[in-house]
Amino acid sequence: MPTHRLLIEYDGTKFAGWQAQASGRTVQGTLLDALRAVTCEREIDLQGAGRTDAGVHALGQVASLRTRGRLDPATIRRRLDETLPADLAVRRIDLVPPRFHARHDALARCYRYQIAARRSAFGKRTTWWIAEPLDLDAMAVAARSFEGRHDFRPFAKRGGEKDSTLVEVELCRLAVVEDFVIVRLVASHFLWNQVRRMVGALVAIGRGAAAADDVPRWLSGASTPPLLAAPAAGLFLETVRYPGEEWSLPPLVPVGAPLLSTVQARVLG
Amino acid sequence: MPTHRLLIEYDGTKFAGWQAQASGRTVQGTLLDALRAVTCEREIDLQGAGRTDAGVHALGQVASLRTRGRLDPATIRRRLDETLPADLAVRRIDLVPPRFHARHDALARCYRYQIAARRSAFGKRTTWWIAEPLDLDAMAVAARSFEGRHDFRPFAKRGGEKDSTLVEVELCRLAVVEDFVIVRLVASHFLWNQVRRMVGALVAIGRGAAAADDVPRWLSGASTPPLLAAPAAGLFLETVRYPGEEWSLPPLVPVGAPLLSTVQARVLG
Repeated sequence: MPTHRLLIEYDGTKFAGWQAQASGRTVQGTLLDALRAVTCEREIDLQGAGRTDAGVHALGQVASLRTRGRLDPATIRRRLDETLPADLAVRRIDLVPPRFHARHDALARCYRYQIAARRSAFGKRTTWWIAEPLDLDAMAVAARSFEGRHDFRPFAKRGGEKDSTLVEVELCRLAVVEDFVIVRLVASHFLWNQVRRMVGALVAIGRGAAAADDVPRWLSGASTPPLLAAPAAGLFLETVRYPGEEWSLPPLVPVGAPLLSTVQARVLG
Repeated sequence: MPTHRLLIEYDGTKFAGWQAQASGRTVQGTLLDALRAVTCEREIDLQGAGRTDAGVHALGQVASLRTRGRLDPATIRRRLDETLPADLAVRRIDLVPPRFHARHDALARCYRYQIAARRSAFGKRTTWWIAEPLDLDAMAVAARSFEGRHDFRPFAKRGGEKDSTLVEVELCRLAVVEDFVIVRLVASHFLWNQVRRMVGALVAIGRGAAAADDVPRWLSGASTPPLLAAPAAGLFLETVRYPGEEWSLPPLVPVGAPLLSTVQARVLG
């Protein structure tokens, strides 16, 4: 059966997450409806690489699409541009080998979290505005100490977590661009709510409510991290890595809120 | 009477423009309400430098505020952050000499217009998405030929235009950043709808419906420009210049829609 790979961008604000549900507007459900209309096929299988939660955005979500239809990718894409709602866009469609599966084949996911130090009229949907000053150096040290293979159970929302909670975090770094802090995180996979709780813990450290050297204690189970999940609005699935491919990471520029003086990002730590 | 200068950012999508009206949600009206609540003063005079239309945004609108109240600027600003709706932000408040008037004293206004060559899930509020390819070189030549002192009557919406329609356009340039085209325009003032009609004419040229050398003919009255006004969503008041001050222009990075590969802007022409 012809298999396509889709590269997908969405503003998650008005979606109840990726995963199709019996009720509620989801990204997968909206895409399936549009794909049925565009291809005139009823039987469509669509698998996303990351099951983003309600309110979480994507710049480069990847999905595999299987259907008997024989429309060429360019035609599907053009028709989707005319069909999809304004907050959902398919950036690319490519015909791929039939064994491709967006979720199973993914080697790593890259997320970004956007914190704003100033209130922007364009930032509500895409940033977490934090009015008080943050200790960015402490946050940068803490971020790095999340890197490596750890049991992230203390950062996972409980919910039938029968699988292992060991996660190898490849990268967890802070970058500062003007009045914005961008946290970038890479791992083969993340547990439910893990990224938002890690960012919540970093912000607690930035506010002085915890210290950077609490992180190893939290990860070893010696103490409990703050139960603060960063709001969904600041979180983006940036990109997904597959075997034999290069990363293509978006530049460290905030999405949504404007830069007013410079585009120079400074990576801390 | 104490006079303050305000630097204001707004997402114009849900505002019926700057100017307070008997009905309709306006930026000036919303600010006046918030300022009355924050200062506990009834009598407040607030004058904006640019009377932006419905749907038009601002990164750096300037307003002068006169009131008997004696609150210090930092307190007003902090309280406004807590009071103003999410799509309106006051970036700065400074105490200025009492003669300062945001509109009368302004030497020049700088606007940007954002065109998107790709459909973005984050772009509907802030870009004009144009699916067909545009001849950017022709648009760049046309843009430059708008510069100088011309009678812009053919680009003005009629409406009690008793004042002169002569406008000195200091700058009209195109920049390309990845899939976005940013048109930047500077003049002491602009006529009603002038910027949106100039951009509409540039897009007509980019589409091949007109030629770059039509611009001088339109400006001399020898022929009539296309009556196409670019949608309000793509237009931003960037900044306002005052005597003895430097410009502080925002970087050429699209506001709202994300850059996915590069931040390098290329100015054409």
